[in-house]
Amino acid sequence: MKKLPYSKVDDYNESQASARRTAIKDQTGVDLKHIGGYSIPPEVVSGNIEMFTGVAQVPLGFAGPLKVNGEHANGQFYIPMATSEGTLLASYNRGMKIASLAGGVKSTVLDDAMNRGAGFTFHDARAARRFGVWVKSNFQKIKEISEETTSVGKLLNIGQYAVGKLRFIRFNFSTGDAAGQNMVNKAAHRACQWILQNQPEEVEAFKFGSQFDSDKKHSLINALTVRGKKVVAECLLPRQLMKDVLRTTPEDYNRFKSTSTLEAYMAQAVTNTSHIANGITALFIATGQDVANVAESSAGYYHGEINKDGDLYMSVTIPALIVATYGGGTGLPTQRECLEVMDCYGTGKVNKLAEIAAAVALCGEISLGSAILADEFVSSHDHYGRNRD
Amino acid sequence: MKKLPYSKVDDYNESQASARRTAIKDQTGVDLKHIGGYSIPPEVVSGNIEMFTGVAQVPLGFAGPLKVNGEHANGQFYIPMATSEGTLLASYNRGMKIASLAGGVKSTVLDDAMNRGAGFTFHDARAARRFGVWVKSNFQKIKEISEETTSVGKLLNIGQYAVGKLRFIRFNFSTGDAAGQNMVNKAAHRACQWILQNQPEEVEAFKFGSQFDSDKKHSLINALTVRGKKVVAECLLPRQLMKDVLRTTPEDYNRFKSTSTLEAYMAQAVTNTSHIANGITALFIATGQDVANVAESSAGYYHGEINKDGDLYMSVTIPALIVATYGGGTGLPTQRECLEVMDCYGTGKVNKLAEIAAAVALCGEISLGSAILADEFVSSHDHYGRNRD
Amino acid sequence: MKKLPYSKVDDYNESQASARRTAIKDQTGVDLKHIGGYSIPPEVVSGNIEMFTGVAQVPLGFAGPLKVNGEHANGQFYIPMATSEGTLLASYNRGMKIASLAGGVKSTVLDDAMNRGAGFTFHDARAARRFGVWVKSNFQKIKEISEETTSVGKLLNIGQYAVGKLRFIRFNFSTGDAAGQNMVNKAAHRACQWILQNQPEEVEAFKFGSQFDSDKKHSLINALTVRGKKVVAECLLPRQLMKDVLRTTPEDYNRFKSTSTLEAYMAQAVTNTSHIANGITALFIATGQDVANVAESSAGYYHGEINKDGDLYMSVTIPALIVATYGGGTGLPTQRECLEVMDCYGTGKVNKLAEIAAAVALCGEISLGSAILADEFVSSHDHYGRNRD
Amino acid sequence: MKKLPYSKVDDYNESQASARRTAIKDQTGVDLKHIGGYSIPPEVVSGNIEMFTGVAQVPLGFAGPLKVNGEHANGQFYIPMATSEGTLLASYNRGMKIASLAGGVKSTVLDDAMNRGAGFTFHDARAARRFGVWVKSNFQKIKEISEETTSVGKLLNIGQYAVGKLRFIRFNFSTGDAAGQNMVNKAAHRACQWILQNQPEEVEAFKFGSQFDSDKKHSLINALTVRGKKVVAECLLPRQLMKDVLRTTPEDYNRFKSTSTLEAYMAQAVTNTSHIANGITALFIATGQDVANVAESSAGYYHGEINKDGDLYMSVTIPALIVATYGGGTGLPTQRECLEVMDCYGTGKVNKLAEIAAAVALCGEISLGSAILADEFVSSHDHYGRNRD
Repeated sequence: MKKLPYSKVDDYNESQASARRTAIKDQTGVDLKHIGGYSIPPEVVSGNIEMFTGVAQVPLGFAGPLKVNGEHANGQFYIPMATSEGTLLASYNRGMKIASLAGGVKSTVLDDAMNRGAGFTFHDARAARRFGVWVKSNFQKIKEISEETTSVGKLLNIGQYAVGKLRFIRFNFSTGDAAGQNMVNKAAHRACQWILQNQPEEVEAFKFGSQFDSDKKHSLINALTVRGKKVVAECLLPRQLMKDVLRTTPEDYNRFKSTSTLEAYMAQAVTNTSHIANGITALFIATGQDVANVAESSAGYYHGEINKDGDLYMSVTIPALIVATYGGGTGLPTQRECLEVMDCYGTGKVNKLAEIAAAVALCGEISLGSAILADEFVSSHDHYGRNRD
Repeated sequence: MKKLPYSKVDDYNESQASARRTAIKDQTGVDLKHIGGYSIPPEVVSGNIEMFTGVAQVPLGFAGPLKVNGEHANGQFYIPMATSEGTLLASYNRGMKIASLAGGVKSTVLDDAMNRGAGFTFHDARAARRFGVWVKSNFQKIKEISEETTSVGKLLNIGQYAVGKLRFIRFNFSTGDAAGQNMVNKAAHRACQWILQNQPEEVEAFKFGSQFDSDKKHSLINALTVRGKKVVAECLLPRQLMKDVLRTTPEDYNRFKSTSTLEAYMAQAVTNTSHIANGITALFIATGQDVANVAESSAGYYHGEINKDGDLYMSVTIPALIVATYGGGTGLPTQRECLEVMDCYGTGKVNKLAEIAAAVALCGEISLGSAILADEFVSSHDHYGRNRD
Repeated sequence: MKKLPYSKVDDYNESQASARRTAIKDQTGVDLKHIGGYSIPPEVVSGNIEMFTGVAQVPLGFAGPLKVNGEHANGQFYIPMATSEGTLLASYNRGMKIASLAGGVKSTVLDDAMNRGAGFTFHDARAARRFGVWVKSNFQKIKEISEETTSVGKLLNIGQYAVGKLRFIRFNFSTGDAAGQNMVNKAAHRACQWILQNQPEEVEAFKFGSQFDSDKKHSLINALTVRGKKVVAECLLPRQLMKDVLRTTPEDYNRFKSTSTLEAYMAQAVTNTSHIANGITALFIATGQDVANVAESSAGYYHGEINKDGDLYMSVTIPALIVATYGGGTGLPTQRECLEVMDCYGTGKVNKLAEIAAAVALCGEISLGSAILADEFVSSHDHYGRNRD
Repeated sequence: MKKLPYSKVDDYNESQASARRTAIKDQTGVDLKHIGGYSIPPEVVSGNIEMFTGVAQVPLGFAGPLKVNGEHANGQFYIPMATSEGTLLASYNRGMKIASLAGGVKSTVLDDAMNRGAGFTFHDARAARRFGVWVKSNFQKIKEISEETTSVGKLLNIGQYAVGKLRFIRFNFSTGDAAGQNMVNKAAHRACQWILQNQPEEVEAFKFGSQFDSDKKHSLINALTVRGKKVVAECLLPRQLMKDVLRTTPEDYNRFKSTSTLEAYMAQAVTNTSHIANGITALFIATGQDVANVAESSAGYYHGEINKDGDLYMSVTIPALIVATYGGGTGLPTQRECLEVMDCYGTGKVNKLAEIAAAVALCGEISLGSAILADEFVSSHDHYGRNRD
C-alpha cells in the first residue's frame, strides 16, 4: 500500500486533497464523494490538520432557545449540537425547555487555569525538597521567563508533588480566550529550560510533561484543582413544575440522584452525572473545540438538594471544562458560524462559552434524570432513534 | 427568541433545514453558509439527529498506511482521522510509520459486552440478598425474556453489587456489530419488567440504569470487567530501530513510562497513556461512532517491558472501547466512506474496527512518548500547529 | 548496637524474654518494667511473634450492651474495645445505647471469601488469553489440587484480570472460622505450582501474589467483590427518638450524610463513613485480630434514606471485613477472654463476630454523625479526652 | 443484660475496674483473669479510655537494630513491634538487616500538617465564591483566632474545594509533637465560629468537619497534600548484596515492583507497597499511637529505579503518617517505654519517630518483595507462623 501524496511546499489546496482522494480510490476502490463534498476552502485548515483530504460531515442542529443567567452569557441562546446519535438533541432540548420555564440556568465560572508540568529526579528526597524550596522562592523569575513566550498567558502558581527522589511541578496559567495547551506548553518549556540552567541541584533525569498535568484524560488532581475552566450551572426547579412537566417530585428526584452519587462512588465512575458527555461532545464538535478534551470535560459533579420551600435546587460543577473561542478549530467555517450564533466567537468570549456549555450539561441532566424516573427512557429512544442500535 | 421551525410530519428535508437556517439568520444575523454547504441528502440523517440544520464540516485526513496484525484486521490500512488539532495526524502518522517498520501492531480483542443495569431497593439487606439468589437461579429465564427484544444481542451474565438494602444488577450482553447501547436498553428494560413481576420480594424502589453500568463515563467497574470491547494492541520495538528513528533506548523509554504509571496512579488519572484520546476521537468522528464514548474509550492501560533480547515490548489495553460498524452514525455518507476505506462497514466487521482502533492508539503512544523523550514535543507543535494556541 | 539475645532452640520462655529486656536496658538505659509486667505465659505466643520481650498493655473497656439482631449474633453483647483514644469508647457506647433503644442493629453477612492471586506473563496477549481459557476449563482440577493443602478452605471461583501480555488470577476461597490469609497462601501456591507445570503456554514470568488480591490495603477490587466478609449492619431510627435523643431530624441527618458521600467521592476517600476505623480497630486489638487489616476493614459504605413513615433507615456495608475466631491472635489469653465474653471464640463463630463488628461500626456512625449535627463534637472531646492533643 | 458499673466521680481505679470484671463474669461466666493481669496503675489511663476494665496484652518484641540516616533519627534503633501475627517481626527484621548492611535507610520528612475542615452552603455558587474570596483575604485574622485555642498549633494555610453552592474549607495546621487531631478540632472550631459570625454571606447550612479533611481514612486529597507527616524513606541496595543476600537482581526486583504499581493502579489499591500496614500497625500499637490511623498511615507509594552503577534505588513515601511522641497513648507505661528505647518520648521528637516509622516501612518492602521473588514467601510463613491460618 502506497504512501498518500503529500507536498512539503504547498499541501493545503484542492489539488492536493483531490490527489489524495484519487489515490485512496485507486488503492481501495472507495470513492470519497461526500468526504470531498465540502464547501470550505482547503487553505483554511492549514494548522488544523495534516494530509487534508476532505471533511467529515457531522449532522448539526440547534437546540433551545436556552435561557442562561450567567455573568458573561445573559439571555437566550440557540445551542449548536453536532451528533449522529438520535434522541440526543431532543433530550437536551426538553431539558432546556424545562430549565427555561424554571427561570433559566445560572452559570458561574469559579476558576480558570491551563496546566503543564514536568518531573525532575534528584540524588535523593532531600535534594528534591531543596529544589522545591528553590522553585518556590524563584517564582517571580520563573513567571517572567515563562511569560516571555506569550502575550496572553499569565503564570498563576506552581503546584508541587513529591515521591521518593522525584519532584513534579505543575505550572498553572491563565490563557485568555484560547484553550491554551500549546501556549502553556511553550511557556512551561521555556520555564523548565531556565530552571534546569539555574537551579543548583544535580538533576539525574528531567521529563517535560507528566501525568500530574493530566492532559487529555480525567484525573482527580484536575478535579480537585482546575484544568481549563471550573464552571457551575445551577437551577431551581419548582415543585409544581416538576409535578406538571417532569411527572416527578423533588423528593423522588433527589433520592434518585443521591443514590447515583453513591453508585458512582462505589463503581469509581468519574462523574455522578447521567450523561453530560453527550451534550459536551455535541457542542464541542459543532464549535471547533478540541473534541479529545471530552475525556476531561465530560466529568462533572451533580449536587442537588430540596430547599426550604420544597423546590429542587440542582447543580452541575465541571472542574475541567476546556473551551476556546479563539484559535484551534474555532475559526473554521462551520465552527465559527456556530460560535457566532451564540455571539461567542473571538476574544473576550471564552467565559461566556464556558457558562453556556455548563448550562447545556445541566439541561441534559434535567431531561435524562426525569425521563428515567418517569420510565420514558427506553420508549423515547424507540421513537426518535430509528437508525440506532 | 423564537422556537425554530419544526415539522412533526416531515422534518428531514432541505426545506426544513433551510427554514431553520433562515430563522437563525433572522434572529441572530449569522448566515449559516457553510453549515448549509453539505453534500449529503437530509433524509439520511433521520434517526441520527433532530432539528437537522446542516453539518459541521470537520477537517479529515488519512494517516498511515498502518500495518495491523490482528485476528480480524490483517494488512495495511489508511486511517481516517477527523480533527481540528494541528500536529495530531502528523504525530500519529509518525507512530504508524515506526510501528510498521517494526513489523506492525498486533491487535487482539479479549472480551466483548455491552451493559445496562438497574437498582432495586428492598426492606432490608436480607431481602436484597434473597433477591440476588433469585436472580442467579432464574438466569436462563431472564436471558430468554431479554433476548426476545433483539435478534442479535445475547445475555452473557448478570453482575451483582450490594450496599445496604439495595441490590444493583448489571446485564452484560454481546451485541454483534452494533455498539449496542439501545439494543441493551431494550433488552434490559424487558428483563427488569419481567423480574419486577416475578420475583417474590417486596420492592421499595426500582431504578432503571445505574452508575454500575457506567454509560458515557469512565469507571473502574468498566475497566475491571468490560464495556464494549476489551482490546490489546502490542508491538515490539527493536533496540536499533529505537536508537535510529526515535533517538532513544528501550531503557530510557521504559523508565519514562514506568514513572508515568506511578504519576497516573498518584494523580488518579484514568489512563497512564499519554494521549490516546486524540487518536480515538479523530477516528470516532471520522467513522460515525458515538463520539461521547470518548469519555469511556479513551482510558487505556500502557504496559511495556524490555524483553530478553533487549528490545522494547509495548502494549496498550483499552478495556471499554465502544465501536460499531453498523447502526448509529456508521451509515452516514462521509462516515461510511471512511469505514469502507478500511473495509470495516457493515456486519461482521466490528472486531476488525476494534483492532484497528487499538492499533491507532498504540501508535500515538509510540510517537508522543518518544517525542517527549527526545524533547521534540514543543518544537513539532510549533512547526505544524500554526493556528493553534 | 548489639543484636538482641535469641535462641533457635527454645526462645519462647521467660528467661529469653527477660534476657532481651536486660539487653535493652544495658544498651539504652530504659527499664522495660511494664512491658515485662505481663500475666501471660511466654510459651503461648510462639507462632504469634518472634523475639518476644513482653507485652504492650493497651487499655481495655467494654461498651454496650449492644443489641444485635443477626442471623448468628442474636441478643445483647458487651463489646470489648482496646484503645488509648479518650472519648472513643464513650462515643460508641452512646451509639450502642441509641441503636438498642431503636430495637437493635440488624447484621447480615452477604458474602465471604479470602483471596490470593498470581500474575503470569506470556509471549503476547493471545497466549495470555488462551491461558485464561485454560484456567477456566481446568477449574475443577485446580480446585482439587489447591484444597489438598487445607481441610477447611474451599476454592469458590477464580477471577481473571488482563493487561497487555499479562494475566492475573485471583483465587477466592471460603476459609471457615480463620481469617485465612495463610491457608489461602498455601492453597494458591500449590495451585500455581500445578498450573505452571500443566498449562501449555510458555510463561515468560510468574509472580506469586499481586495487587489484584489486595492484601493489607484497601482496593476497589476488594470493595466490588469481597475480601473476608461482606457484612451489612442496618437500623431504623424512629423520628421521635432522633428528636429526643439525638436532637436532630431524619431530614437533617440524611442531608448531612448525602453530602458526606459527595465529599468522599470528590476527595476520593475510601469510605463515606465518619470513623468506622475507630471501632473496628479497638475491637480488633481486643479480640486478637490481625490489626493491620484495619487498612482494609475500615472502609465501609454508608447508605441511609428516610422511609415512608418518616423514620431514618441507615446502614453500613463493610466489603472487606477480615475477622477470625480461630487461629492467629484469637487464642492469646486476653484476646480469647474478649471473644468469650461475646461467645465468639473458636470454630463456628466467625460470622457471629462479623455481624457484631459491623453492628459496632454502625453505632459509631450513629453517635458521631449526630454529635456533629448537634455540634457537640468538640465539646465532648474536651470533656473526656483530657490526655489528648 | 445489665449496664456495667460506672462512677461519674471516680472511675479510674482498681476497684471500679475490678467491679466491671466481676460484673462481666456474673453475666457471661467469663473470668477476665488476664485482662485484669496488668501492671499499670488504672489512674494513668484516665483520658485514654472510658470504662477501663483491664488491658489487652499484645505480644511485643524488638526488631533491629536498624540503621537510620535521618535528619532527626540518626543511628541504630531497636524497633518495638506489637503483633500477634507470626513471621511479621522476623520478616521486618530481615529487611532491617539488609537495609543496615546496605548502609541504612535515609529518612526525610517533607511536609507536616494536621487538618480539619468545614462545609458551608450558600444561596448559590456566586455567594460561595464570594465567601471563598473573603476567607482568603481574612486569613491572618482567622489564623489569630484559631491559634488562641492552642499554644502549639499554627495555621499554615486554608484549602478550598467547591461544588455547586457549597464551599468546603480545610484548615492545615502544624501541631508540634502531638498528632494534633484534637488540637486542630478546637482551633478549627473556634475559627469556624468566628467565620460564621463575621463573613457577610447568608449561610444556608454549616457542617463542622467534612470528608475533605479525611480523618481515619485514606483519601487522595490527603495523599496529594499531607495529613500528619509526609515522609520518605530511601535506600540503595548494591547489586552484589541483592545477589548474595536476596538472591535476586536489581532488574528482576525492579520489574516486579513496576508491575505492582500497574496492578495497584488497575485494582485501585491505595498503596503500591506490599504490606507497609504490617510494620506501621505493630509500631503504632507498641508506641501508643492512635492505631485507627493505620487506615491512613498504611498507604504509601513505592518508587524504585536502577541507578547508573546498576544498583537499586528504592523508596517508600508515606503521605499521611500520623504519629505523636506526646499526648494520646504515648505516655502510657508500656508505650512510653517503647518510645524511650528509641529516645522518642516527649517534645521535640516527633520528626524522629516519623523518620523511624518510614524506615521500618521500607524494610518490610525489602523483605517481602525479595521473599516473593525468591519464592520463599509461603515457606517462611510455614516455618514461623505455627499458630496462624
